[in-house]
Amino acid sequence: MILTLTPNPALDLTYEVDQARVHAEHRVRRVRSAPGGKGVNVARVLAQLGRPATCAGPLGGATGEQIRDLLRAHDGVRQAWTPIAGDSRRTVTVVAPDGATGFHEPGPALGPAEREALVAGLTALLSSASPLVTAVTLSGSLPPGLSGEDLAQLVGVCRRNDRPVLVDTSGPALLAAARSGADVLKPNAAEALEATGTHTPLEAALALLEIGAGAVVCSLGPEGMLGVRRDNGSAHGWRARLAEPIAGNPTGAGDSVVAVLAATVLVDGAELPEALRRAVAVSASAVTRPVAGEIDLQLADELMPAVEIQEIPCP
Amino acid sequence: MILTLTPNPALDLTYEVDQARVHAEHRVRRVRSAPGGKGVNVARVLAQLGRPATCAGPLGGATGEQIRDLLRAHDGVRQAWTPIAGDSRRTVTVVAPDGATGFHEPGPALGPAEREALVAGLTALLSSASPLVTAVTLSGSLPPGLSGEDLAQLVGVCRRNDRPVLVDTSGPALLAAARSGADVLKPNAAEALEATGTHTPLEAALALLEIGAGAVVCSLGPEGMLGVRRDNGSAHGWRARLAEPIAGNPTGAGDSVVAVLAATVLVDGAELPEALRRAVAVSASAVTRPVAGEIDLQLADELMPAVEIQEIPCP
Repeated sequence: MILTLTPNPALDLTYEVDQARVHAEHRVRRVRSAPGGKGVNVARVLAQLGRPATCAGPLGGATGEQIRDLLRAHDGVRQAWTPIAGDSRRTVTVVAPDGATGFHEPGPALGPAEREALVAGLTALLSSASPLVTAVTLSGSLPPGLSGEDLAQLVGVCRRNDRPVLVDTSGPALLAAARSGADVLKPNAAEALEATGTHTPLEAALALLEIGAGAVVCSLGPEGMLGVRRDNGSAHGWRARLAEPIAGNPTGAGDSVVAVLAATVLVDGAELPEALRRAVAVSASAVTRPVAGEIDLQLADELMPAVEIQEIPCP
Repeated sequence: MILTLTPNPALDLTYEVDQARVHAEHRVRRVRSAPGGKGVNVARVLAQLGRPATCAGPLGGATGEQIRDLLRAHDGVRQAWTPIAGDSRRTVTVVAPDGATGFHEPGPALGPAEREALVAGLTALLSSASPLVTAVTLSGSLPPGLSGEDLAQLVGVCRRNDRPVLVDTSGPALLAAARSGADVLKPNAAEALEATGTHTPLEAALALLEIGAGAVVCSLGPEGMLGVRRDNGSAHGWRARLAEPIAGNPTGAGDSVVAVLAATVLVDGAELPEALRRAVAVSASAVTRPVAGEIDLQLADELMPAVEIQEIPCP
């Protein structure tokens, strides 16, 4: 069982409107609600890949209850949240025929006792044999009150308990995850460049390896992805892409990459090039689905042979 | 005790952002939650006027529970909702320094059994002596599944139980309320013109009297308000306004007018010109408050003498 930690889970609301206009009043035609936050999407993709997953992280208030209720409808996804006093956040995506506009609540601030409870909850989950946690993912932004240091502490709990851990985050938290020796990091290109202050995704990925990450997979949007890993002190890199990228809704595609890397690299011990092939195929299938957290397994299988893998010389 | 019926109550969310832009992602800086829906604001103003009020209407789901919880903090406001299966709606107001953008969920559709429960609930509340309901207000838009005919049925329940009733709504529901003999109607000018197809607020108010309303008060924004009533078959009209209107946030000002008219005209039997004077002063004080459902009683008392009342010749 793979544990997917979401530091800031959300109730994702989608509002359909005829047209979005600033400083106007809008009648919402249709409302859709879904459990959200990157780690929740990762768990849903894992379940679709036939890998049972457990969602963990801080959850609280009436909105937390709504997230929990909505997630109950998803087969293969268990829940082991840490209760907090604050109300979990919402995101609102306003969808009009010509595009989407998003509003992201900051989420509840965690107090010192809640941070401790989060670490204790993770430790307890890793100590339990039923179900046995085989790997951990940690995805998404940190809520107010949680620092890169706290994230490093969570990675440390995984390492001390001999569980491989993948982190998908940005900013100082991404650097903290690298320094704390996360097995795999999965930033997108903009996040990797921003956090490292480098000029190309390869430079950024190598910089993150340099400060402690075991491997780095950097998603490049329709350009596929780039993966690097350390091997006896030297770095090896690959680029994976579809010659003909698939158009659609990229929201949640990165979460499907995290799910594939966790299942293949962390649990099955697959080699990075083969994991990248599967990740490109599955995330391309996610792009064809209108909703984050959904993939098309049949399409992913069809796309697998079309993924081009190229070795990149690493300095 | 005044019963304030809200056919479509809401959880009002206010999102503070640096700038609102279409097709962009926004970090919400601060979230405020308040119990909302016009009738809920009316009850909150009544409580501030020293008149205990009870909120009624359909309420359901996790969002309904949040509305109920938030309303518990308001002294002088009781709750007697009719439970429904659907989830009550939210409204989201995105506030940036240069203006506000609103998104209104439609609200849950009411089934036939829920419509019957709403009528039965109102009947039961009017039959009870503890607390004795002295008047009823019905404010706001109707949710899906509730028609003008249903609204007329609710007005009929009040009339058969000898309780005066004020209706603040729009469109076909406003016409249905007039036809069913509501004691007072309180549309704004745009709503009155739209529903009646007339060209001036006075023509609109007289048309609503003609088809059955006992009195009509039409709010004209900073221009004050217009009131007409029937007396022995002929119509009498007044205009009430502040010579120097007060600038501010007009959201909820109309709800404070409903509260004043319910307390003065329906319960105390005040004459319309004096009720208009108080309504103009209280609603001007509401404009100075950043949040709907709040008034400034001291300012309202200070403004009372400055309200100009003028009789209007009615044809």
